[in-house]
Amino acid sequence: MKERDLIEWIRGQQQRMPPELVHGIGDDCAVLDASSLRRLCVSTDSLVEGTHFRRRWSSPYCIGRKALAVSLSDLAAMGACPVACLLSLSLPPDLPDSFVQELLRGFLQGCRLWNCPLAGGNLAGGSLQLTVTVWGDIQRGEPVLRSKARPGHWLAVAGEVGLSRAGLEILRSENPCLDDLQSDIQLMRRYRDQRPFEALKAHLLPSPLTAAGSWLQQHSLPSAMIDLSDGLATDLMNLLRASNVRAVLETGPDSALAGRCRRWGITLEALLNGGEDYALLFSLQARRRNRLESSYPGFFPPCEIIGHLEKGAPAIFLEGEGERRRFEAQEFKHFSGDA
Amino acid sequence: MKERDLIEWIRGQQQRMPPELVHGIGDDCAVLDASSLRRLCVSTDSLVEGTHFRRRWSSPYCIGRKALAVSLSDLAAMGACPVACLLSLSLPPDLPDSFVQELLRGFLQGCRLWNCPLAGGNLAGGSLQLTVTVWGDIQRGEPVLRSKARPGHWLAVAGEVGLSRAGLEILRSENPCLDDLQSDIQLMRRYRDQRPFEALKAHLLPSPLTAAGSWLQQHSLPSAMIDLSDGLATDLMNLLRASNVRAVLETGPDSALAGRCRRWGITLEALLNGGEDYALLFSLQARRRNRLESSYPGFFPPCEIIGHLEKGAPAIFLEGEGERRRFEAQEFKHFSGDA
Repeated sequence: MKERDLIEWIRGQQQRMPPELVHGIGDDCAVLDASSLRRLCVSTDSLVEGTHFRRRWSSPYCIGRKALAVSLSDLAAMGACPVACLLSLSLPPDLPDSFVQELLRGFLQGCRLWNCPLAGGNLAGGSLQLTVTVWGDIQRGEPVLRSKARPGHWLAVAGEVGLSRAGLEILRSENPCLDDLQSDIQLMRRYRDQRPFEALKAHLLPSPLTAAGSWLQQHSLPSAMIDLSDGLATDLMNLLRASNVRAVLETGPDSALAGRCRRWGITLEALLNGGEDYALLFSLQARRRNRLESSYPGFFPPCEIIGHLEKGAPAIFLEGEGERRRFEAQEFKHFSGDA
Repeated sequence: MKERDLIEWIRGQQQRMPPELVHGIGDDCAVLDASSLRRLCVSTDSLVEGTHFRRRWSSPYCIGRKALAVSLSDLAAMGACPVACLLSLSLPPDLPDSFVQELLRGFLQGCRLWNCPLAGGNLAGGSLQLTVTVWGDIQRGEPVLRSKARPGHWLAVAGEVGLSRAGLEILRSENPCLDDLQSDIQLMRRYRDQRPFEALKAHLLPSPLTAAGSWLQQHSLPSAMIDLSDGLATDLMNLLRASNVRAVLETGPDSALAGRCRRWGITLEALLNGGEDYALLFSLQARRRNRLESSYPGFFPPCEIIGHLEKGAPAIFLEGEGERRRFEAQEFKHFSGDA
């Protein structure tokens, strides 16, 4: 299929366009009416073959859908509502048309699921890469930054942590061929046990927490927030550095983190260093904890307090059973360990 | 250099941030205050190693600078003024730090030259690719679309056409090593004749016509406009299809196109099918021709009438010395012919 035919095919797919999008696909730029926007949040992220995915382990549908999810997670971290996105695709010349269409089908399915229409993009020949730019808006209040966490604030996580890495471990050890996966129902039929199903779903079909992020922002709950892509410990360090505070995570037997380790059968190290969670990590003022716990909607992914912040140079300490020890973050490296 | 160090290095480079940019590099998103914006134009474009450039023929400085120029050309085509940009970089792990820094130096030099600060981005491991998202604004009037050209309108070009392809031909035939090129002065020292110097400059160090595009929009001159990246004939066909009109280009000995062929020593075919011009092609109402010719600033790249539009199915006709013949566009393919 030629570039022009592909663009026509995309234009033929039904998309609900927001009223502020004056011109979508088909001109040199997408055009937005800025008068209905207030705080425009923009971010870009890439999925690269060999670095972030393999064709044997991910179907084109999953790759397309995940590329959008990963970028939307950055909007979630600011508390912004998605407005629209751009997709820049680099495609090897020998890629079959069916692969490209499945990839776009997955991407456009994400656009519908998460209310973020595709407004334009670019096609080039090259190795398989998807670069997605998303923009979102905040109609009331201000975006949540990484730099406003303070000593005395609680530290909380919304969403699952460590599960996506457990999914990657399954792919590494079992080396299954999942290149035709098109939905989580198919995945469930293949993996009947809850743990591998949930782990592979978290890795292959992640959902960005844009609704939860926006809810938290609208209720003025987080003082600082970041999304988890490189691992809880690594991204927590980024938040700590931006805010110049230290973190103490509760790891005793009754703690939220220990409960999560038991639930998914993973070690604390794997949970803290696992990547691609696309969960939200945020701090909140002590007096807001009650409001979070009493009003956080039950239909959102689980949200729990995992520790607190203290005065001190940026560092992570684990505290459980009367002991406190320092934890060094190890950045999650996708496939760099193998390949 | 680790990702974090690189981001810190970028943050350390002086950049003039526009007042509407509330938060730049360093958080999950860049944040813009939408209240000072009106018609936000957004576009994305990529430069891919092997497809759009080769390291022997382009220095990292030139690659970085050109990546921004190419994206800004899309803003120029709408008549929008640049506001800010995002850079998504995919880098092979064995690339030396000095290469990455030179590439960013070229990119940031472009940011300064064309008033478009870098507001954020993304780094990933992979083959060498640069994906740039730019956004611009239009404070008065509406963006210039491709679809508003009508029969009876003149067709004009601002900027050079075919020159960049002539530069590519020099690279192909002479295979020079230009991997340390950092400025057009260096290029001039090496190529003392005007033609190869101008041709290589057009190919390696193009400048987007954002100032001219914005001037044309502000003076309500173009009825439709497109930037030339795939070749004059191919991009003209895109404009004709969007507007559903046909074009007649003047090619007689006294025509503007014939003059350009003589000036740069290229054939009409090479001029019409050459790519990466980043010139602006636009239509204008008959009664506006005088205003264009009398008021177009002399310090902008040359602007000339090259033909007119007629009623009829989208097609290009060449008219010279009493004859009219149809011309089939051949899309410019960068390196696909060799490599």
